[in-house]
This record gives sequence, structure tokens and C-alpha cells, in this order.
Amino acid sequence: MDPITQITDEITRRLFVELEASGRHVHVTAQQAETLFGHRLTPKRPLSQPGQYLANERVTVTGPKGEFREVAVLGPERKEAQVEVSLTDARTLGIDVPVRLSGDTEGTPGATLTGPKGKIVLPSGVIAARRHIHLTPEAAERFGVRGGQEVSLRTFTARPLTFHHVAVRVSEDFAPYVHLDYDEANACGFRPGDLGRILP
Amino acid sequence: MDPITQITDEITRRLFVELEASGRHVHVTAQQAETLFGHRLTPKRPLSQPGQYLANERVTVTGPKGEFREVAVLGPERKEAQVEVSLTDARTLGIDVPVRLSGDTEGTPGATLTGPKGKIVLPSGVIAARRHIHLTPEAAERFGVRGGQEVSLRTFTARPLTFHHVAVRVSEDFAPYVHLDYDEANACGFRPGDLGRILP
Repeated sequence: MDPITQITDEITRRLFVELEASGRHVHVTAQQAETLFGHRLTPKRPLSQPGQYLANERVTVTGPKGEFREVAVLGPERKEAQVEVSLTDARTLGIDVPVRLSGDTEGTPGATLTGPKGKIVLPSGVIAARRHIHLTPEAAERFGVRGGQEVSLRTFTARPLTFHHVAVRVSEDFAPYVHLDYDEANACGFRPGDLGRILP
Repeated sequence: MDPITQITDEITRRLFVELEASGRHVHVTAQQAETLFGHRLTPKRPLSQPGQYLANERVTVTGPKGEFREVAVLGPERKEAQVEVSLTDARTLGIDVPVRLSGDTEGTPGATLTGPKGKIVLPSGVIAARRHIHLTPEAAERFGVRGGQEVSLRTFTARPLTFHHVAVRVSEDFAPYVHLDYDEANACGFRPGDLGRILP
């Protein structure tokens, strides 16, 4: 890498966090994977967060008013199933979905998952993922923020906006990325590679 | 109205502009209405902008990859057809739709409109409406802005955000409202009655 590119990359890394749009997707337990697919999840390609992957397996998500076929399943398996949709998707499914951080599914509505080998009726677990920033401890320190905090984030996108109350999550296991759902991504005119800036 | 309510309403009116979410909809010419429905548009209910109405008539909008049935048609008829969709809708239709102000349809993609009496192939006219604020001259003066200007607008909504580059449109024929599409409305967690504030 030439020195100018190297310096530019380093400055970019210090000032901005890359944006990513998460489409609708599902997390399942190992046992649910067996029920739906007849076997555990198999990785198709890695995601930006270390260890996370898009699985080869896909499911149909059904709500009272509609369904989505071929929905992405993300691995590895979790302790509890979770279905992440946008509020636009929720309307199509006919479910009133709360905006929650991943993992916080108590009292949320359910949906039915159908795979090639079986069906699972989830009593709960459908959420619209609250927008959040994944940071390493090193990046958090650099930006002067800590895990659990909320920040405002300006997007440098085609339709720029500033998201308020963006949750900050910090872990050694993370790579620095902002995660938006597709409503949010479209609202700001997101294109892959676009950057955001945490406001002071 | 009791005096406190009156004062509260007046302060609200001076500080904020009410938000509205525009779902996907179609504008047609008088001649196109005849082709699609066999008659001119008939009003079902008035919209917030004086003189504008939701028509009883509905159309199917078809793109290369998908279609929407029962799409709202807004009256009165215009000089030129226009189809306004969100970027999420555009993906469903399979069209790459630019973000434009209403009326600015040059070089935009087309779609097919189907009504109970006929079909129209539009060579162009499909846009994602650029977010904008309708203001009367009086309201514009009060907020210290003018038509054609761009402002930032903070939403007081469940998932608050600040939209940048919001177009200001001023006319005696307008009522003060911010118009968002459903991507934007969902991105900020909009509920009917929610307010926005034009930032200085």
C-alpha cells in the first residue's frame, strides 16, 4: 500500500465508522436448526463481525398477514431464536414489532419459521433491531465513548441525516461498524462503503 | 377551546411542524384517468394540503421484478403522471429510482399502471420523493426560511433523528407539514401527530 493511501485509511479509521445495512434475518438455536434443516447451520460467507456468518440455510418467516421466503439465517447458532425485521417488514407480516437491542426479546411477538425439514412456531423473538455501533475497546476509547452509552451519528450518505440515541456496544470480539436496518439505510440513501461520524 | 390549550397549540404551531408519512401513490392526467378508470378521478377524502385529495380509484403499479396492487391515486389530476415510491418499494419493483422533488421527473424510469378499464405504460415518472416541508409564506417567515432553501429538521419521534437537506417549499396554497416517505417515517419511528423542529 502506498504511503498516502495508508495515511488516508488511518485518518478515515480515526474519524469515521463504516455503515452496514442489515436485511431481515433469523437466528436459531442448534436444536431449531436440526428441526428446520435436519442438520446444524453451515457457513456460506463470513460477516463483518468476527465469527459471525451467513448460513447456506434459509427459512420462510410467516406472520398473520404475510410472509417472507428465503430469509437469511445468521450463524453461529444462539441460545434463543430471534427474528430481525424492519418496521416496513413488520407491516407486511402484520405484526406490531418493538424496537429492541439484539437479545432483548422478552414480551416480543412471535412468528412461524418454516424450513425444508420442519416448522417452528416461535411464541416471541421478533424485533426491529435498534440501531447500534459495534466498537472494539480501542475504537471506543479513540471516539471517547463507552458501551451502553447512546450517541448521535451523522451519516455521510446520499440523503444525509443524523441518527440520535444510537446504542454503543463494545467488545474485543467486535469490528467497528454501524448497523442500520433497511428503513434506516434507505432513509439516508446508504450505499455500501458509506461512512458515519460519531458526534461529540 | 380553553385558554391553556389555545396557548399550547399556538406555541406548538410556532415551534414545530407536524410530520406526515406519504405512502406509495400515483398522480395521473385527466386523460390517463379516463383510460384507466373510464372516468375522471373522484375524491374519497381530502389530504392535508388544501385542494388535494385521495381518490376512490386505485391502480396496480408494475415494474420488471414486482408489482403493487391497490395503489392510492391522488387528485386532482396533473399535467403529467408521477409515481412516488420509497426506495424499499423501488427494490420490490426492480427499478433503480432517483430521489427527486415532485414534478422533477426528467430522465426517471417508468412503470406500468393498470386500472379496471385500461393500462398505461409510463416511459418515465417514477421517483422517490425528496423529503420536504410545505410552508405558507407566513410560516416560512416565522421560521426564518424561504422556498428553495434546505434545512435540517429534528424529529420528536420514537427513534429520533435529524434529517439534513430537507427541501423547503413555500406557497399560499400549502398547509405547514413535513412530508416523509415510509422508509424515513419508519427510520424515525413516526406515529401520526408527531412533530419536527426546523433547526437554526
